[in-house]
Amino acid sequence: MITDKKNVAIIGRGNVGAHLSRALSGKANVTVVNPHTLAELTGTEDIILISVSDTALPEIAEKLASHIDIDNKPIVAHTSGTTPLDVLSKLDTPYGVFYPMQTFSKDVELNYAEIPMFIEGSDSGVSDMLMTLAGLFSNHVHYADSEKRRKLHVGSVFACNFVNHVWALSEKWLTENGLEFDMMHALIRETTRKALANSPHEVQTGPAIRHDAPTIQSHLSMLESDAQLHDIYKTLTASIENSYPE
Amino acid sequence: MITDKKNVAIIGRGNVGAHLSRALSGKANVTVVNPHTLAELTGTEDIILISVSDTALPEIAEKLASHIDIDNKPIVAHTSGTTPLDVLSKLDTPYGVFYPMQTFSKDVELNYAEIPMFIEGSDSGVSDMLMTLAGLFSNHVHYADSEKRRKLHVGSVFACNFVNHVWALSEKWLTENGLEFDMMHALIRETTRKALANSPHEVQTGPAIRHDAPTIQSHLSMLESDAQLHDIYKTLTASIENSYPE
Repeated sequence: MITDKKNVAIIGRGNVGAHLSRALSGKANVTVVNPHTLAELTGTEDIILISVSDTALPEIAEKLASHIDIDNKPIVAHTSGTTPLDVLSKLDTPYGVFYPMQTFSKDVELNYAEIPMFIEGSDSGVSDMLMTLAGLFSNHVHYADSEKRRKLHVGSVFACNFVNHVWALSEKWLTENGLEFDMMHALIRETTRKALANSPHEVQTGPAIRHDAPTIQSHLSMLESDAQLHDIYKTLTASIENSYPE
Repeated sequence: MITDKKNVAIIGRGNVGAHLSRALSGKANVTVVNPHTLAELTGTEDIILISVSDTALPEIAEKLASHIDIDNKPIVAHTSGTTPLDVLSKLDTPYGVFYPMQTFSKDVELNYAEIPMFIEGSDSGVSDMLMTLAGLFSNHVHYADSEKRRKLHVGSVFACNFVNHVWALSEKWLTENGLEFDMMHALIRETTRKALANSPHEVQTGPAIRHDAPTIQSHLSMLESDAQLHDIYKTLTASIENSYPE
């Protein structure tokens, strides 16, 4: 709970910024604004969350210096998984990281309570404040230093971004062949349930783990018309075969 | 519903055979046996399901000829996603396909009602009988010819086998770095929910779709110690970048 009123400004209007605004809106003693430009900052902010691309972050951090009221000592935190805490160290104010490990799409509703939040601060007061802020919506608030956060981010690229892409490739293949991706839904639900209830490594199935060369060859010949699918099939099959030697 | 008593024998004691035995056990008017060898067949079978590897299937089909009572006209069906119906055409008895599109692990419980079943028959009587049998446990019974089934199987290798492997790679990375795969669970649940509620292609997120070169480079440099993870990261990132040109 936030006991004294806090003004939170969220810089950046991408998916993450939009969802964090929504997650924090209406929480007791928190006022959230989502300014279009740094010039709209008023100097009365207690917490400024910078939710811009990793590429833009160093530049925004630099520009921010002339838009904050240093006497007010606002906490400035970024929301990036990969960028070190240090990117904000030149600001003459407390700073931290407020990283939501989640897949944000602008128009897709989320259960904010389920978002794991990873927090880091330039001192323990900052960490405590950001952990309290995160705890207003998330049931999974953790402390993670920059190194750990970077490692988690890599893990999440595999677990989320790559997995979704592989589903998109399945969808592409089926659509190209006049079939509905919906036909995969029951299988996808079960695949997910199994991977969460077990170690994914322990529950691998399919032609590659069986080293079933005729099936693999038959699939590759069907995929010859689509270089992207053919290439990914070959690469992931080889990776599975290597993970489980005969 | 099966109206007159049917003897069902399931050849093959792998994951699929074991689960089909369990799925059919105790259903009214169905007796299921799971013989260890073809010699255990008694000639009184009404339906014989061959659930062996795609590699072994042609040989088992050939050997089976001398173990069935042709006058009894048992239906012989295989459970393979990839093998054409034809593999059974030399048997002098009706034949078909009884393909469960699911990821079976021996000791993992399944909700059999959710397994999509794809049926094909050498004539419509066979298809009807196999669809009735599948309908005893599954709420999703479809007819699919060999071509369609083969295409669905390729789609399922991406949607299930490859996706699970990518999760296993995430697990491997985290474990190597002293982190728990559990930390990905909330993200995985949400990734799956989004992919099922939308087109996966439409809800892609992450550094690759943003063409965020600094983050990608930073991740690749972290992965340099693990050639497998490095290679898969590069391949899937390139595939996403190609799917969504800047």
